[in-house]
Amino acid sequence: MRVSGLKKTTKKNLMVFSGRAHPQLAQEVALELGTRLVPTSAYEFANSELYVRYEESVRGCDAFVIQSHTAPVNEWIMEHLIMVDALKRASAKRITVVQPFYGYARQDKKHRGREPISARLMADLFKTAGADRLICVDLHADQIQGFFDGPVDHLMALPILADYVREKYAGQQLAVVSPDAGRIKVAERWSARLGGAPLAFIHKTRREDRPNEVVANRVVGRVDDRICVLVDDMIDTGGTIVQAAEALMADGAAGVVIAATHALLSGPAVDRLKNCSAAEVVVTNTLPIPSENLFDKLTVLSIAPLLSRAIKEVFEDGSVTSMFEGHA
Amino acid sequence: MRVSGLKKTTKKNLMVFSGRAHPQLAQEVALELGTRLVPTSAYEFANSELYVRYEESVRGCDAFVIQSHTAPVNEWIMEHLIMVDALKRASAKRITVVQPFYGYARQDKKHRGREPISARLMADLFKTAGADRLICVDLHADQIQGFFDGPVDHLMALPILADYVREKYAGQQLAVVSPDAGRIKVAERWSARLGGAPLAFIHKTRREDRPNEVVANRVVGRVDDRICVLVDDMIDTGGTIVQAAEALMADGAAGVVIAATHALLSGPAVDRLKNCSAAEVVVTNTLPIPSENLFDKLTVLSIAPLLSRAIKEVFEDGSVTSMFEGHA
Amino acid sequence: MRVSGLKKTTKKNLMVFSGRAHPQLAQEVALELGTRLVPTSAYEFANSELYVRYEESVRGCDAFVIQSHTAPVNEWIMEHLIMVDALKRASAKRITVVQPFYGYARQDKKHRGREPISARLMADLFKTAGADRLICVDLHADQIQGFFDGPVDHLMALPILADYVREKYAGQQLAVVSPDAGRIKVAERWSARLGGAPLAFIHKTRREDRPNEVVANRVVGRVDDRICVLVDDMIDTGGTIVQAAEALMADGAAGVVIAATHALLSGPAVDRLKNCSAAEVVVTNTLPIPSENLFDKLTVLSIAPLLSRAIKEVFEDGSVTSMFEGHA
Amino acid sequence: MRVSGLKKTTKKNLMVFSGRAHPQLAQEVALELGTRLVPTSAYEFANSELYVRYEESVRGCDAFVIQSHTAPVNEWIMEHLIMVDALKRASAKRITVVQPFYGYARQDKKHRGREPISARLMADLFKTAGADRLICVDLHADQIQGFFDGPVDHLMALPILADYVREKYAGQQLAVVSPDAGRIKVAERWSARLGGAPLAFIHKTRREDRPNEVVANRVVGRVDDRICVLVDDMIDTGGTIVQAAEALMADGAAGVVIAATHALLSGPAVDRLKNCSAAEVVVTNTLPIPSENLFDKLTVLSIAPLLSRAIKEVFEDGSVTSMFEGHA
Amino acid sequence: MRVSGLKKTTKKNLMVFSGRAHPQLAQEVALELGTRLVPTSAYEFANSELYVRYEESVRGCDAFVIQSHTAPVNEWIMEHLIMVDALKRASAKRITVVQPFYGYARQDKKHRGREPISARLMADLFKTAGADRLICVDLHADQIQGFFDGPVDHLMALPILADYVREKYAGQQLAVVSPDAGRIKVAERWSARLGGAPLAFIHKTRREDRPNEVVANRVVGRVDDRICVLVDDMIDTGGTIVQAAEALMADGAAGVVIAATHALLSGPAVDRLKNCSAAEVVVTNTLPIPSENLFDKLTVLSIAPLLSRAIKEVFEDGSVTSMFEGHA
Amino acid sequence: MRVSGLKKTTKKNLMVFSGRAHPQLAQEVALELGTRLVPTSAYEFANSELYVRYEESVRGCDAFVIQSHTAPVNEWIMEHLIMVDALKRASAKRITVVQPFYGYARQDKKHRGREPISARLMADLFKTAGADRLICVDLHADQIQGFFDGPVDHLMALPILADYVREKYAGQQLAVVSPDAGRIKVAERWSARLGGAPLAFIHKTRREDRPNEVVANRVVGRVDDRICVLVDDMIDTGGTIVQAAEALMADGAAGVVIAATHALLSGPAVDRLKNCSAAEVVVTNTLPIPSENLFDKLTVLSIAPLLSRAIKEVFEDGSVTSMFEGHA
Repeated sequence: MRVSGLKKTTKKNLMVFSGRAHPQLAQEVALELGTRLVPTSAYEFANSELYVRYEESVRGCDAFVIQSHTAPVNEWIMEHLIMVDALKRASAKRITVVQPFYGYARQDKKHRGREPISARLMADLFKTAGADRLICVDLHADQIQGFFDGPVDHLMALPILADYVREKYAGQQLAVVSPDAGRIKVAERWSARLGGAPLAFIHKTRREDRPNEVVANRVVGRVDDRICVLVDDMIDTGGTIVQAAEALMADGAAGVVIAATHALLSGPAVDRLKNCSAAEVVVTNTLPIPSENLFDKLTVLSIAPLLSRAIKEVFEDGSVTSMFEGHA
Repeated sequence: MRVSGLKKTTKKNLMVFSGRAHPQLAQEVALELGTRLVPTSAYEFANSELYVRYEESVRGCDAFVIQSHTAPVNEWIMEHLIMVDALKRASAKRITVVQPFYGYARQDKKHRGREPISARLMADLFKTAGADRLICVDLHADQIQGFFDGPVDHLMALPILADYVREKYAGQQLAVVSPDAGRIKVAERWSARLGGAPLAFIHKTRREDRPNEVVANRVVGRVDDRICVLVDDMIDTGGTIVQAAEALMADGAAGVVIAATHALLSGPAVDRLKNCSAAEVVVTNTLPIPSENLFDKLTVLSIAPLLSRAIKEVFEDGSVTSMFEGHA
Repeated sequence: MRVSGLKKTTKKNLMVFSGRAHPQLAQEVALELGTRLVPTSAYEFANSELYVRYEESVRGCDAFVIQSHTAPVNEWIMEHLIMVDALKRASAKRITVVQPFYGYARQDKKHRGREPISARLMADLFKTAGADRLICVDLHADQIQGFFDGPVDHLMALPILADYVREKYAGQQLAVVSPDAGRIKVAERWSARLGGAPLAFIHKTRREDRPNEVVANRVVGRVDDRICVLVDDMIDTGGTIVQAAEALMADGAAGVVIAATHALLSGPAVDRLKNCSAAEVVVTNTLPIPSENLFDKLTVLSIAPLLSRAIKEVFEDGSVTSMFEGHA
Repeated sequence: MRVSGLKKTTKKNLMVFSGRAHPQLAQEVALELGTRLVPTSAYEFANSELYVRYEESVRGCDAFVIQSHTAPVNEWIMEHLIMVDALKRASAKRITVVQPFYGYARQDKKHRGREPISARLMADLFKTAGADRLICVDLHADQIQGFFDGPVDHLMALPILADYVREKYAGQQLAVVSPDAGRIKVAERWSARLGGAPLAFIHKTRREDRPNEVVANRVVGRVDDRICVLVDDMIDTGGTIVQAAEALMADGAAGVVIAATHALLSGPAVDRLKNCSAAEVVVTNTLPIPSENLFDKLTVLSIAPLLSRAIKEVFEDGSVTSMFEGHA
Repeated sequence: MRVSGLKKTTKKNLMVFSGRAHPQLAQEVALELGTRLVPTSAYEFANSELYVRYEESVRGCDAFVIQSHTAPVNEWIMEHLIMVDALKRASAKRITVVQPFYGYARQDKKHRGREPISARLMADLFKTAGADRLICVDLHADQIQGFFDGPVDHLMALPILADYVREKYAGQQLAVVSPDAGRIKVAERWSARLGGAPLAFIHKTRREDRPNEVVANRVVGRVDDRICVLVDDMIDTGGTIVQAAEALMADGAAGVVIAATHALLSGPAVDRLKNCSAAEVVVTNTLPIPSENLFDKLTVLSIAPLLSRAIKEVFEDGSVTSMFEGHA
Repeated sequence: MRVSGLKKTTKKNLMVFSGRAHPQLAQEVALELGTRLVPTSAYEFANSELYVRYEESVRGCDAFVIQSHTAPVNEWIMEHLIMVDALKRASAKRITVVQPFYGYARQDKKHRGREPISARLMADLFKTAGADRLICVDLHADQIQGFFDGPVDHLMALPILADYVREKYAGQQLAVVSPDAGRIKVAERWSARLGGAPLAFIHKTRREDRPNEVVANRVVGRVDDRICVLVDDMIDTGGTIVQAAEALMADGAAGVVIAATHALLSGPAVDRLKNCSAAEVVVTNTLPIPSENLFDKLTVLSIAPLLSRAIKEVFEDGSVTSMFEGHA
């Protein structure tokens, strides 16, 4: 039937790319995978426009492009988009955008009329540039997966953070605390991972006549004499979480450990955390933490093993879901 | 410069269409707008395929197509899609899909791997069929607005429900109660609308050794001797909300009023509500309630004035946002 | 030139999925292929929304999703769409939608103004959900292939049906009859397959003064003393075909065998067929036939070998066209 | 609420454009509408690439771009596409492509594997170039309406042709004849329009042992002593229709009038028609007929009134459907 | 035929929006149009994500969103995109993106393999966000118009710059000079506008053995004793143009006037221009020029009249083309 | 985890297709690749519509479809589009459109208002038909790469042409000359390839009072006693290049060799070239040159080795960029 043509066995080729926002993390990921980052020229022109070029052929490759959307967010998102465009035009076979931190995730709905939904816009911009799929870590809302028109692998840092806490505080009485009522589900997953530690959360009480004004951070649940693990998805300026820590101590907690995936540490965050009652602050390196922001009680766990394992599963048609099975 | 051509002042023409899921509501909306539903033939063929045809010219019209996604949901969504297709092919100028209840809204994320995100899929199906914009009421999650690639007017039934409760229970001591910790923000808006009524919510306590098992519904906040307004977006089988009502009575509440926008009233819901301690159940007619599901303490408020006002604002380039301003 | 990256030989993986409309057929197909259906959870929620989840990893697979659009059609089409969405989001590599019976195929044009073209709409809905390609059997109009923006493999049941008839009625004088003037081309293909059996068809005569009123079913062509094979693409309520059978017998036929690909058997069809003069009714199992609809003279041939061979050709980059070569 | 901005009443502006394939028809249409064709430069470069430019501003206009796809078909389709592109980029508000004859309409399905579906391709090319909607006349298959992703106004020339025949042959005994079995539905509409004239058609009989070989054109129905109106959608090379005319005369017809919408008149068509037994050949001017192709018994009716009325209805948001109501 | 529905005359409403990159220009444009900028909240969150919200209803408006892509380019492009998204979701009827300076215009092709084509990417990003059309000034390459899938109004600053020069230097002998061989066409348009001033350009001569090394800037054409108007589309770091000015003076020019549309003035540009032999530098305010970058011989002409006239023509369905007719 | 499914190693299959515009070139390419053209039926119907069908299965193949857009351009482009459609619908895995000459490349911008941008339109038409990627040779403007939404491999004929000239004229004094000021960059690349030959170009001088009128073709640069290699991307009617050749001879050149990639040779081109002073005209066979257009001093070099090597690199995931490295 078919006599024309030339046959050849198909090979696939994993290549890892990194923007300039957080190259250390990408290097760690490449190392874990047993490869190296594809050499890339990237710089700014005099008027601040960005330039990117890959130094090796990328034709037909299975590309994973890592960029963490740290400040200046717009700069790094644009670099990410331009990298994807260059890969598409250079004939990469499949382009997976890896966002250890997804910029604009908190603008996931219109709080009031005439606002943008920037989290959806970002998903569309990456699709337009040429992204076939996304890998993300601990999205601010699970619904953001639905903003992208294609597969999204949504990774959880919980096992990394919780296992660290479990080992470090083995033998102590723990409680898991959510800093506000809206995030109790995350706390429940922590509780399960920590062998059933009791749950508590901070209830912002309001005056009957002024319901929008928080008058106190009331602790709901028993925390006395326990080490409280205060959990959230991100620490931005640190205001809410530090107030929660103080409320826990005032309520008789034996100590507080703050744990969060994304360490934005904007503005006053480092000072607030340094000076608060928490004994330890545990985060991951989804975002770069400049050395001047490191402080004694800050513990930074690497997200690289999680990312590299997910990339490997994606490349080899394995299962990302199975990475989190058995985890509450 | 331009000498060819024929000029004419542009008119726009509002036309209201209804599927067969809940025609009473659509008729009420048309009446409020001062028009009538466009006569439409719609029926099932022998093998259950649907047929739709409009009896009047719809060319150039500003079409509002109302269908509420009640059971059988798939039947009515498909009819809705087919109606949009027929309008597109018959040259309607703009097609606004009106979903008093948005089917599949609860499937807005992947809870586990290999699930669909059906709420996003529905948004895409309507876009494909030809929808230019959506009007919805009290979406299960605000992020669903971001699933549609176009304008979404998200209406709130809160003013209708809350004003009814305020008037009916004027002079009594009220509290606003959320049936679970994840919906306190809605309760806060109710509290504001009710002049600062105190907030409470039901905390599902768990055994320390079995964190996924609910052992009790604990009331957080002071409810004794108050009429508790228990608020949610929808009542499906009624299990959660009825348990919450019982917990409130056990905790010393003077009475319970249940209020929710969407009355799905599936399976055992009517029995549960009839027999529970709540004194009144207040809902809207975003979904049809068959007469056999009506019971004495059920109050059904009409959503038609809200929908018709929103349609009017959209048609006349007014402001939907301003409809809700000053409302917490 | 290229020193970065990890190479791996590409494997492809065929996986077969089935909705709940007609699982027996899908199981038969999987068996023929030497595999099994991918275990899938699928059920309805209390308010009739559907839920689907795959129990195994589907990442990178070449997915074939089988659903036959039997009644309730809208339910099963929606399940089909949701299954495709779940596959897309779970990173299936390629998704082939297999529709043994294509729902809404008869609404393939506007008969009058302001009707939908639902057959095109269905094609677009599947594309939007994530379908890369379709496999269909005996579409009502060949043009429907052009409604889908991608490859469509259009299979013919003719060889299966005709070979059965040829063997069973070997040695007898056959004629091939079309039940109306618009379907003579199908009858011609049958005639060729049956070694040049003579053709006839039923001409609906009309009164000169009332041309839209059928007054008689006149047989055109010689059928006397022959076994007439009355052929069509589907049997819905059975009215037309049963009248045709009676006309043939009245015209002196030795017997009538009815043959059609799709057995919708809606409403009065079973009764009509049971009680008509035809000696045998031969159909395939593109649609499920509940046991209460089986009757003595009904012969159901399996379409599974055809579907499984087509799937195999598609998976292995073989030729589907060649499956039908030499068949008139 | 809104204090910024400048208001202005919206005007719409109808503009009619013509390619170079059949400018006489377009001029006639413009004249009927009371306007003139927009002056347009159009020519070929030395290497046969086309150039188009409009001599007047078209910003914001409601554009109707008329081109009939006569030979050389590809030349005129490409000019049509380029005209649409120029209109889109020059800010026309809405672009309606008017195809009195739709090129490639007969390639509406895959007759065999590995063929294109060029009729669908054309629909997509016009959509891509910027067409918002189509106006067509007597498409070869009604399903082609479903190939375009947008509104299609499908006009029928039947009233024009049939009214001419009715008047011209008033008082004579007519019969309506279809040249093959697949087009009887068109003949039925003619019959209704001609006050219930009896129907007949030509049946191509085949030898029992060679079913693909036509051995005779048998007339089915009574035609003796009647003027037979032989109807089809188009006359290409004229072979089939001329053979049908001869068969009718041989069968005792009093005379034959051939009527068809589209006069392609390719190759031997003019000679065949001139020399056949038909007394008159009635067509419309959907395609240009060069003067050397005119012959005595050829009557050409203008389609311009139909097109201009449809354009007027579309421009003024009237009803095109109503133009054909009451017509069979 | 149509008895349902509500009719209303359509009004259109022009609204002008400005990002934060260059609000003075936008204010000037709004003033010229006789309106004001729509009040808008825009700021950065702590982690540098942007926020935008309009303070007035924009429903149904004809929106013109002005942002000039000055440094930091990525910040302002992202703000521009987010503004468009917010307008789309708030139901603006038509969104025109106004880019007095189009960021990334110089990356309009791949100079080498594996580069992005960022100018095309930007066009696609704006389309995705919701832009219906663009208004730009003096694009770096005319082909960029073709990057956007929709109408682009491409304005020329030439009349503004050239008329200023003609008046200021009336009575003097002028020559028009292009700073490199690739831009002579622009110089030709200047020459025509200046009444036929002679042309010259700078030829970068190269050594025979090292063709890529510029050894001299040779003046081609007669410039002695003439005032040379040295013209380009933009001044970035000013290196090329300042060298050209020196070459002209060395070649006997009576004086040099530098004229360019876009004043990027990056890095050393201001120092170079201040200290070079040119007597005057004439630019427009398509980009903001901070007060510390102003210097004595710099003349800044306003582009606002051009932009506001173009917006008016677009809003009123006038002609932008006619604005430049008769101009070389 | 995954127990269902059938695994198979993936093979890829290169297949080469040719339209009827320039089959010799395609055959040469196939031969170089070690395969043959896929047998294809292609012809015109009586009314000039095209028909195409492949004679072998193309399922899953990596298709390269070669067509050169020679006159009649529209015919061949349409055939090219139809071939792509047929491949898409026949399940080719990837479709690469190979355009040795890209039709309409010169219409890459709007020179005046209300023109099309046909070069962009062509890119979109091929995308719509199903093209995944393009291979082109010496595009008229590099920006055209950005018109296609996908990878474009842009090949350069320079090495082929320049190496031929270098060898043939070894030992002679060469100069490289551009026929107008806008194409000096191409000449620079030639100069580099020819070991640093000096550059010159033709400057069209204009009268001071009529700047648009060319009064002389002035040679800029030293050409006396040198063999001038006059280079351009294409020769259409040959007017400009022949005048340039005469100017060079008048200026004392020892001889002129004309070199261009694309030999359109429209209208008077052959006569002009035959009769001009140039000693040799070197072109490639990107376009077919009919035998009656061959003349003594015309040298035609084959582009087939370049195309076949590029196709091989694309098929094998090699590097096309590296084919041109080290070449100026």
